[in-house]
This record gives sequence, structure tokens and C-alpha cells, in this order.
Amino acid sequence: MAVDREFYMRQALDLAREAARAGEVPVGCVVVRGSEIVGRGRNRREEKRSAASHAEMEAIAQANAALDTWRLEDCELYVTLEPCPMCAGAILNARISRVWYGARDPAFGACGGVVNLFMEDFPNRPALVGGILEAECRAVLSSFFGGLRRERDKLT
Amino acid sequence: MAVDREFYMRQALDLAREAARAGEVPVGCVVVRGSEIVGRGRNRREEKRSAASHAEMEAIAQANAALDTWRLEDCELYVTLEPCPMCAGAILNARISRVWYGARDPAFGACGGVVNLFMEDFPNRPALVGGILEAECRAVLSSFFGGLRRERDKLT
Repeated sequence: MAVDREFYMRQALDLAREAARAGEVPVGCVVVRGSEIVGRGRNRREEKRSAASHAEMEAIAQANAALDTWRLEDCELYVTLEPCPMCAGAILNARISRVWYGARDPAFGACGGVVNLFMEDFPNRPALVGGILEAECRAVLSSFFGGLRRERDKLT
Repeated sequence: MAVDREFYMRQALDLAREAARAGEVPVGCVVVRGSEIVGRGRNRREEKRSAASHAEMEAIAQANAALDTWRLEDCELYVTLEPCPMCAGAILNARISRVWYGARDPAFGACGGVVNLFMEDFPNRPALVGGILEAECRAVLSSFFGGLRRERDKLT
């Protein structure tokens, strides 16, 4: 079980690194049904100039298309960073059964960081497990923001 | 001012009625910049088989495309039903400055119905005004769900 969840989180981490290479805040996500990955996503906010293009939204949209339904009751979601309110809301709307996340987000997190939407009185709340490969998930973000700071310091 | 906000809510109501005619839960939304409507959306969840295709998400995506940016700081959003967590989160992410909604949603609302995300410690929270043309906004929903019940009763 521990092996499986780390396998899927590593897939999400690969997508986060792909986002970093593209100059996006590095967050990656996969949606899994049984043992199959049915949706992959990574942050594309700058590329698409779209407020909604977070990793989870992309992965959920891909899973919706792959399974030809908005209902993902039998799916689990792995994401490198704690979901924001929009993504936590999309997880509720898609009725995803379980969420695994890596690093906590004390600034925007909606699964414990700022609020916990999955502890509120909404229907179809998923099970929630945080801290999967947390150090690696956090390192990808730290490295990206560290790089941005170095770029800025070179310019000033 | 009261005239303006009712004008824009009537545009959103027209979109909600369009959704009802298409067999979707009738919610409509417009995004306004200055006096110009830069995004229109209506619920397309069944049509697109997508958990994310709520009216607000469609209107925000259209505004992002029209203005070629994910940042909508100088925009206001009008929606016939209180936003759910996903849509309230997208409003935060897009940095929309003000939200006007029609009917409350005690089951899914994230602007006071179940939780109020705009009262939590997130950055870029919009101003919020509920109850604009509330009776008309509620009537569009009641009529839709009443019709569904009549269809079901015919079948049983």
C-alpha cells in the first residue's frame, strides 16, 4: 500500500518538475482508478493565462474525458501540494473518494492549511491523507522559488 | 447602481434559463469590467461531462481569454446562485474584486451557505453582496427542479 501511494506520488512529482521547467509554480497531480492513471495534470496558469489551470483541475478534466463522465466516485487523486479551495471544491464536485497530498500549504490550503473543506458539511467528502513524500514535494517548490529569488537578485 | 447590478444579474438570469432549456441545473454568470461584459457562462456539466463546467468557471475562463490574463482584479462577477467551494476558490484565484449573487445555497454554498471562504484568511478576498434579484433567481431553479419532479412522477 505504501509502495503504491509513493509510486503515484512520484508520477505527480514528475509532472511538478515538468511545470518547473516550463516556468510554472511546480505542482503535479494524477487521478487513479483501480491501479490505472486516468488523468494527469500540472500547473499551466501562465501558459494558458487561466486562473483555473491548476494541476488538479487539469487531471480531473482529463479523467472526466477519459471516463466520459463528471462522476469520479471510484477514483483517488494524488497531488504534490495541498489543494487550494478551487481544487478542493472540484474534488468534492467530482465526488473523488480519496485525496493524497504531499506538502502542506499554510497560505492557500483548503485541506487543513487555512481551512479544511473536507471537514465541513458538504456531501461526497473524500478521505484525506497528507504528507506523502512530503520532503520531496516541498523540495521541488523550494528549489523553484529559490531559483526565482536568485534571478531577482541578479537583476537588482 | 441598483439599476446596473440588476441589469447584469438579468444577463446572468438569461444564461441560467438557457441552461434550463438544455437540461442543465440552471445557473448563469457574467464577468464585468467597467461596464463591459467580458465573460459569460452557464452550467454545462452534463453537456461537457465535466465536474468543473459550472457557470462561474465558464465565465471566468471566457474573461481570462478575452483579457489575455488570469488576473481579473478589476472585474466583478454576477451569478444567479451562491458559488460552490470550487467557484468561490476560482474567484479568489482570479482575484476578482466583487461578487454579486442571487439565491443562497444552503447545501453547497461557500459564501455563507455552508462556509464562507471570503471570510477566511485567504489573500485577494472579494467584496460580497448576496440577494440580488433573489426571488427571480430562486424561481428559475424551483421551476427546473419542479419540472424534474413532474417528469419523475409521470414515470412512477
